Order: sequence, then C-alpha cells, then structure tokens
Amino acid sequence: MTVKIGLLGLGTVGTGTAHILLDPTGRNPLLQEISIGKVGVRSLDKSRQVQLAPGVITTDLEAVVNDPEIAIIVELLGGIEPARSLILQAIAQKKHVVTANKAVIARHGDEIYAAANDAGVYVLLEAAVGGGIPIIKPLKQSLGANRISSIIGIVNGTTNYILTKMTTAGANFTEVLIEAQKLGYAEADPTADVDGLDAADKIAILASLGFGGRVKREDVYCEGIRQVSAADITYADQLGFVIKLLAIAKGADGEISEQLQLRVHPTLVPKDHPLANINGVSNAVLVEGSPLGQVMFFGPGAGAGPTASAVVSDIMNIVAILKSSGLTETLDPLLSCVHQHFCQITPIEAINTRFYARFLTKDLPGVIGHLGTTFGNHEVSLESVVQIGFQEKLAEIVVVTHQVCEGNFRTALDEIRTLEAIDSIPSILRVL
Amino acid sequence: MTVKIGLLGLGTVGTGTAHILLDPTGRNPLLQEISIGKVGVRSLDKSRQVQLAPGVITTDLEAVVNDPEIAIIVELLGGIEPARSLILQAIAQKKHVVTANKAVIARHGDEIYAAANDAGVYVLLEAAVGGGIPIIKPLKQSLGANRISSIIGIVNGTTNYILTKMTTAGANFTEVLIEAQKLGYAEADPTADVDGLDAADKIAILASLGFGGRVKREDVYCEGIRQVSAADITYADQLGFVIKLLAIAKGADGEISEQLQLRVHPTLVPKDHPLANINGVSNAVLVEGSPLGQVMFFGPGAGAGPTASAVVSDIMNIVAILKSSGLTETLDPLLSCVHQHFCQITPIEAINTRFYARFLTKDLPGVIGHLGTTFGNHEVSLESVVQIGFQEKLAEIVVVTHQVCEGNFRTALDEIRTLEAIDSIPSILRVL
Repeated sequence: MTVKIGLLGLGTVGTGTAHILLDPTGRNPLLQEISIGKVGVRSLDKSRQVQLAPGVITTDLEAVVNDPEIAIIVELLGGIEPARSLILQAIAQKKHVVTANKAVIARHGDEIYAAANDAGVYVLLEAAVGGGIPIIKPLKQSLGANRISSIIGIVNGTTNYILTKMTTAGANFTEVLIEAQKLGYAEADPTADVDGLDAADKIAILASLGFGGRVKREDVYCEGIRQVSAADITYADQLGFVIKLLAIAKGADGEISEQLQLRVHPTLVPKDHPLANINGVSNAVLVEGSPLGQVMFFGPGAGAGPTASAVVSDIMNIVAILKSSGLTETLDPLLSCVHQHFCQITPIEAINTRFYARFLTKDLPGVIGHLGTTFGNHEVSLESVVQIGFQEKLAEIVVVTHQVCEGNFRTALDEIRTLEAIDSIPSILRVL
Repeated sequence: MTVKIGLLGLGTVGTGTAHILLDPTGRNPLLQEISIGKVGVRSLDKSRQVQLAPGVITTDLEAVVNDPEIAIIVELLGGIEPARSLILQAIAQKKHVVTANKAVIARHGDEIYAAANDAGVYVLLEAAVGGGIPIIKPLKQSLGANRISSIIGIVNGTTNYILTKMTTAGANFTEVLIEAQKLGYAEADPTADVDGLDAADKIAILASLGFGGRVKREDVYCEGIRQVSAADITYADQLGFVIKLLAIAKGADGEISEQLQLRVHPTLVPKDHPLANINGVSNAVLVEGSPLGQVMFFGPGAGAGPTASAVVSDIMNIVAILKSSGLTETLDPLLSCVHQHFCQITPIEAINTRFYARFLTKDLPGVIGHLGTTFGNHEVSLESVVQIGFQEKLAEIVVVTHQVCEGNFRTALDEIRTLEAIDSIPSILRVL
C-alpha cells in the first residue's frame, strides 16, 4: 500500500514536487510507494502544469491536513500564516511534516518542534536551506561526531548573483538589482533577500543544528548588501578579496563554549578561500569541526527542481522509516529536534573580527595621523591605511584592521566621525 | 544502557575513532550512549595513543565478533582478509557492521549485502569514500528523488597531491612521488593509489549507490597517473585545462538507460570546472541529476580525524535506529542495500569522449596531413592540431579531438603508430 501525502501549495516548488512523485521511473524505487492524496491550493482558477486525478485538488487547506488517509503533510505555502497554523494542526493529527519554509521554522521552530516531539512525529526541512544541496541531513546525521567550530554559508542566491554581477561587470547595486528582477532572480520587493533577512533565517536554522541548541531568530545580527558599492568591490579586489554576503555561525575560538556568534553581513573573503569562487545564484555551506576539518557543500540554492529534490528526499526519509520500523514510541534522535536549551549569543559589539572601512576626507596629511591615533586610542590595530585616490575634492582612504573588538572599532569610528577633516565614511565591511 | 561496539583495528583510524568515543563532550549527545566493548588488534606490544580499560584490548579478533554484548562491529583492519570473513561472521551473529574498507566492499559487497539483508542488519560505509566528506549517506538518503546522470570524483588524495604539486612546481611524477612518500601522503608501495585502483574501488561503490544496481569491481576501466608528464601539464595549462585523476560513473547521455560508463583515468579538466580547483590531498565528488542539477561535496579525503568522523557518524546512525525503533523485521530501504540486478557497463571502446594526444614526429609538414587524414578516415574529428615545439630533433605535436568514439580513436592511433614519420606517442589523455 502506498503512503499518501498531502501537498499544501502548488507553486513552482509544489509543481516540481508533484512532477517527481508522478513520474518515478529511473529514480529511487521507494518513490513508487508514495502517492499524492490531496493538494491544497489558494485558487482553482489558475492553470496548472501538472495532471492530477479529479478531486485531488482543493481550496480547503484544512481538509488536506485533516484527511485521515494522509500520513505526511508537505507544506510549500511559504510565509508565516496560515503555514504555521496548518503545520501545528497536522502535527496535532499525528501527521509527519515536510516543509521548505525557512521563515516559519526560524521564527516558530520552538513551538513546532515541541508539538512534534509530543506527538511523536517528524518535521523535516531539507529544502529550507540551500535548495537542492543536502545540508540539513548531513549536519544532523553525518557531522555529529564533531565539535563544530563554524558554519559559514553563501545561502542566498539573489544577493550572490547581484554581488557576482557587480564584480564581473563593475556595475552598481541598483542597476544589477533591476536586471536581476527582470531575470526573475530577485523579487519585486527584494527586501528579504538584499537586506539579509532570508540568509538570517537560514543561518538560525543551521546554527541550531550544528551547535545543538535552540536559536532565537532575532538574535541574528543582520546587514544586507545595499551599502556595497562598485568602488568597494574594486578596492577589495586590489587587496586580494571578493565581497560576499556571508551567513556566519561561529563558536568561541579554540574552546568549547556556549557562546555563539550569529551574523549575516557583506564580507571581504580572501580570493583563495573555498567560498570566494561560489558565483551566481549558487549556494555553498562550509562547515568546520574537530576532528573533521573543513567540508563544503555546493550546489543550486533555489529553483523548482533543486528545491523539489530536497522536499521529496524528506518525504522518502519518512516513508522509509514508516516502511521499516512502522509507528514507534520514540523518534530517531538524529532526525528529530531534541534541543532543550537556547544558545547564548555573543553581542555583535563583543565579537573579534577584521574590518575594512572607506573614508572620504579633506586635509589628507593631517587626517591619516588622526585616524591612526584615534584607532590606536581604542586598541584598534591597523594592518594598512592606503590613500586610494580622489573623489572630486575629497581624498579616499581605505583602512584594513587586524582582528579587533567590534565595540572598540565602533567607538573609534564614532570619534572619527566628529573629526573636522572627515567628510564621510561610505563603507564599513568585515573581513573573513 | 549504552550500546556496545567492538572495534577491529587500532591503527590511525581506529585510534581516531576511539578518541571521539572516549571524549564525547561538545559533540552530539547520542555519543554518550555508546561505549567500546572490545578492541581487536594484531599485536599487544605496540604502544597505543588511547587509554582503554583493562581487558578491553585483545588479539582474539573472533572473540570481538562473537561477544554477545556487542551490537555493532566496526571493521578498520583494511585489506581483504581477515576483514571479509570477520564482517560475514559478525553479520551471521546479527551484528550491524560499520566499515571504512573500500577494497572489501568493492570486491565482496555482493556477498556481504546479501548476508546482511538475510540477517536484517546494516552494513554502513561512509568512511570508505571521501574520508570525512558525507557522500555515501547523501547519495542514499538525499539524492534519491533524482535521475542521476553522472558522478565524477577526485577521490584519491595521494594522486591529487602529486598532480597538484607537479602543476604548481613544474616537477616530474617520480620526484613528487618520492617527496609524497617522505611526507606520508603516499605509501612505500604506491600502486593502489597511483595506478588508480583505490579510486576504482571508490567509484564502484558510488556508482552502485547512485545508479541503483550492483557493480562488478573488475568492470571499472582504470588508468593511473604514471604516464602524466610535466610537459602534458604545461600544454594542458596553455589549452585552458588542469590534469586531474577523475573517477567517473556516467549514465547514457540524455536518456534513462541501464548502460553505465565506469572509468578512472587522468583527465584534462577545464579550469572553470568546479573540480579544477580541488587541490592537494582534498577530495570532491560532483553529482549531477535531474531535476537537481549539480551538487558538489568537498573536504578532507583521508586522515585519522576526518575518517574517524565518518566512522562514528555511521555508528551513531545505527545507535539512533536501535534507540528509536529497536529491532524490527524490516531494514530502512534508504540505509540498506536493496539492489538486485547488476548494472550493464559500456565497454571503454564504445564510450564517446574527447581526447588529448601528444606525438613526437619527424618530417613535420607531411605528418600533420597524415595525422588529419588517418583520424578523418576513422571518423575522429579534430578540434586542434598544434605544433608545440621540438624535443631534440623531433617535433612535438598536440592533438585535441572533438567528442569521438574511443574505439575509432584507438584504431586511428594504431594506424598512426605505423607511420614512418611518427617517432612515438608519449601521452594519450581524455578531456572532460
């Protein structure tokens, strides 16, 4: 007998998922034991690129969740509501859940996993991070022997496309964004992508898995890429870096600690770093741990096909468990979420990192001394101070620091801003 | 109650495995439910870098396998015997098996998995391919929704180190091999690595998982890197390629077919290909499928720590199943080996690929015409014929073909060898 699933949502990913399930030839034979019971959609009027038996498709989303023949609910609606309520309702009906919804898991994972553990069901979310790249399951099942020291990812394809295009074409953020919107790589309202919110959702999920504690989404420090200019990309290139939007979760250096850094920001990445060559809409996640060292997972971070591949792999995992062990009292501890405590997050002011900052100044000879003195007074040690050129009548100076405390660096900047000779500080970026 | 494991072998990987199990702090909490019951070694005289309770260590390997308190046997002896017999004996005792032994699985996987399926136990082997890189489990559990079209890997660290060093230092094979042996990257008898045998074992395993059929190890066509010269690396560079030892499993182009290509050989890889930048002892596996596209897994392919990470992840997976579903009649179809049929392998003569060949010739003007005519007579279409330079009194000509049938290319070469003007053909390499 086949296992029946209920699909919520029949957009690009929902359609991709249905395509795989309806055409199992040449794929894993387990797919032949899965069938689509019901599909819940918002409107019946749209034309669909998938052939479903009559009566399968409905606008009554709750009827899908409550159908007693359905064992697994696949939530592909996106957004917070009604996704959250439907997931909780499915769990209450003892149905397993597969979701691609990073936003709802990053914000309500706590509530959802508590309910799932009580009900004895799985909530799997491979598609929520990195599209088709297997990263959630490897983190849960393959890397647990390690003490994870960092997870660093390029996890948003839109911003990586924009930064790649700015780098190769020397173009500005706004023009590339408009082009990306035309190509369908960026949405009409690009906020979630370009302001780093989507990447923040994803690193919250990865951090929780890698560091074995719950993570509050609002604890992720987040800067987007709007402030990155073509000039910064050029100067970074001259210094041996490319600029990438990185999502970073990092334990305390060299020790086991509850303190975790969680941040998303544009970052200068050395050109020989594995993440420096991840271009276009591709995603990659680099995990470092002991005794493993570094492993990297690379692939398509979005798109109907890749995301559907991840969704179906989760469905297959649950079906494999149902077929082998049937219903048991205890969930597999490597597939369920067993975290009890919340990770303690290091405030952004307390982290140590390197900085790149670009200043526009008047009165050049005096100002380099002033910059050096002010940074020095706040224990900010400089690696280089270079006068790059002139913009109109202002001198352009680029400073790169050694590893410094972010709070000290900010205090120094506040003081520098008050200097007569400083016109403005157009960019402040971190260096990996 | 903890789950007891029996370790066979306490070399570098065995010691690394014991280190993780004896020091679980900061790692996945499931490790606290695993203990080392017995360790079987060849000699008690060696000094060991790991502290074990008295009576745990023994030279009686069968006593480890037969201990009724032990649920999982971890085979880290390497080689064919006694590894094969001990694995079969463990399975007969209904014990699960974790192994890092690619040689025994590639050659006797058939017998071992048949026995495991009969006994209802798992045989997991994440550490057998790609060291610490999660690749076996992702192929089994995360990519099954796809029609896999190819798996291409750099899966031998020794040869990748040698080729990288030959490329960066312009050195010859023999001198780099001697250096690699001094550094411990190559063994005193380097045959298994440099002749491609280790890579062939690994691609046989990956192909079986990715293409869902059994694979005979002797069906893997295999060429090593001894014939790769510094000159070829230089010419490849000028043509826009790097030379890598690739292990390739490939379905028929553009169609679902039982026909599989299985081959290991030095290959010219375009510099912008994801595998071109995998250097030193690192490994990487690129999997392509539909609807997924390309994903790549990158990391340390060998070493005590990375390999132990993979071994322990397998142990944890079995323990997680034992803790959640306990003993059931049916194995998880995504974790066990369910293949019944053997993949049909395309003979090497029948594959289509591009070639690079280097000729030493006398009488230059005539010979280019002869080469072109002979290749043309055998339907081998050429992309470029370049006279690179002179070696002593012989002209050096490099030919790159379009996609051609290997059999035709070989027949053409046989004819070319008989030409008066041809001195020798020092290298014949395939192009990705």
